[in-house]
Amino acid sequence: MIYNRVALIGLGLIASSMCHAMRRGNLVGEIVGTARSEETRQIARDDDLCDRVTETAAEAVIDADLVVLCVPVGAMATLAAEIAPHLRPGATVTDVGSVKRAVMDAVGPHVPDDVHFIPGHPIAGTEKSGPRAGFAELFDNRFHLLVPRPGTDAAAVMRLRQLWEGMGANVEEMDADHHDLVLAVTSHAPHLIAYTMVGVADDLRRVTDSEVVRYSAAGFRDFTRIAASDPVMWRDVFLTNKDATLEILGRFTEELFALQRAIRTGDGAHLQNYFTRTRAIRRGIVEAGQDTDAPDFGRGRTR
Amino acid sequence: MIYNRVALIGLGLIASSMCHAMRRGNLVGEIVGTARSEETRQIARDDDLCDRVTETAAEAVIDADLVVLCVPVGAMATLAAEIAPHLRPGATVTDVGSVKRAVMDAVGPHVPDDVHFIPGHPIAGTEKSGPRAGFAELFDNRFHLLVPRPGTDAAAVMRLRQLWEGMGANVEEMDADHHDLVLAVTSHAPHLIAYTMVGVADDLRRVTDSEVVRYSAAGFRDFTRIAASDPVMWRDVFLTNKDATLEILGRFTEELFALQRAIRTGDGAHLQNYFTRTRAIRRGIVEAGQDTDAPDFGRGRTR
Repeated sequence: MIYNRVALIGLGLIASSMCHAMRRGNLVGEIVGTARSEETRQIARDDDLCDRVTETAAEAVIDADLVVLCVPVGAMATLAAEIAPHLRPGATVTDVGSVKRAVMDAVGPHVPDDVHFIPGHPIAGTEKSGPRAGFAELFDNRFHLLVPRPGTDAAAVMRLRQLWEGMGANVEEMDADHHDLVLAVTSHAPHLIAYTMVGVADDLRRVTDSEVVRYSAAGFRDFTRIAASDPVMWRDVFLTNKDATLEILGRFTEELFALQRAIRTGDGAHLQNYFTRTRAIRRGIVEAGQDTDAPDFGRGRTR
Repeated sequence: MIYNRVALIGLGLIASSMCHAMRRGNLVGEIVGTARSEETRQIARDDDLCDRVTETAAEAVIDADLVVLCVPVGAMATLAAEIAPHLRPGATVTDVGSVKRAVMDAVGPHVPDDVHFIPGHPIAGTEKSGPRAGFAELFDNRFHLLVPRPGTDAAAVMRLRQLWEGMGANVEEMDADHHDLVLAVTSHAPHLIAYTMVGVADDLRRVTDSEVVRYSAAGFRDFTRIAASDPVMWRDVFLTNKDATLEILGRFTEELFALQRAIRTGDGAHLQNYFTRTRAIRRGIVEAGQDTDAPDFGRGRTR
């Protein structure tokens, strides 16, 4: 047992996957869970997702060795204030938010001195949300980034690392600001771009939604998967990782304009060179085991 | 048998999939294939991809009832000039290019009066290229768009339609200019955007390629699949569907700027509304059978 009692606050895709993954590895003694909505708590009870479901976050954290904040980033400060008086001395508080500087600023001031606060972020997910979206394999061979503050107790960090490794993840440590920049590239900017493209397609007068749907297999449908992700979670990501996201979007726009100009002027060599270069990154991702090499993601085909 | 002899010019992903699909349905008498590169022709021979492989396109089309041009759009005009004198009277010429107005303009003038020319475009593909990338199921439940010119022989159109239906596709007819606009939305603009984002990630100094690769599961890797598509084919798509692509990219940029402004000003309501609206299109695509509902495209997971 790495922890005797783990409290999960918020029971969406990540928390429910943690339940399954912690049980698969027999990693913890008791899993206590709670969620703001009664509907979610009832599903958790019906499905035996956790060992115990409490009505409030304050109640959930009592005597927990590890408290995991699994709520949208914008809800973290209020939640931290609510649970702080009930945290057990020596406990560890972590989170799974997609932005790290904002979480440190929102949660940090509320955490008592005798509690370890070690922010984290699993680089894994799907476009599905809610307590029934989770599955034990979500973190397998994915990275989990820990963002410990200077001076954090090394033993507490090691224990949390072991939990994530037990759930299948490769754990790395990173500085919060660098994390937010890297994720702006690998996640936040791509999500905003996908949302934008899907919104544009939905909004055109000369092309019907039915046409967009029927002919989506030509590439567009990949964007719609990302653009089906949880709206509140993503609203909070952009509001709390504003600077890095805007920086990357600025670079993106600059590059897009250069490619548009190449199209307009008929500069085929520029286009072909650019499109050849981008193939290498795909190869790197497949070789690193971070995506399948099956054509079209192996979508619904059996070969 | 829908056709006695079909000639495929160019043996990449689409043509090789047609070979497998035509054989699966026992749809044609003989499949003749050719490709510009000797390497490709040798693979076709080694794999028995076609019934017969010829050295030249001119040779391949002799006595063919159907000739399918499966080369990049930019190569169509030269190819059409080369095969025109060798086409059998009463034969049909079609293509599988991603742009239709440019193909009509490039190929049309070369086609003799006694030959039917019916441009077409299968809305199906993967990021893989070449004669070994094909598989029989590629067109199953995907759409195939035929773009017959006014006055085209109805029986010839019907016969070509039957071939594509036999290969599993749903066939629809569409005007060439509308096709090019619809595909700019569902395919060409998304591809350019994906290429751009991947290029930006590759080019940042403050984030290493290794970080991009390792943390790509957060969304970015979806873009890299699209950005691994054939560079020459895509160069030609953008050069030949310039106006529609630039129009859609203009709309995209406008919308992206509005969302960037919402991020900058902290307008969470605008973001959340936008992100909620885009979920509906995803549902439509899944309900229309144009994508899997499995989380994360069902990528490499067994559940």
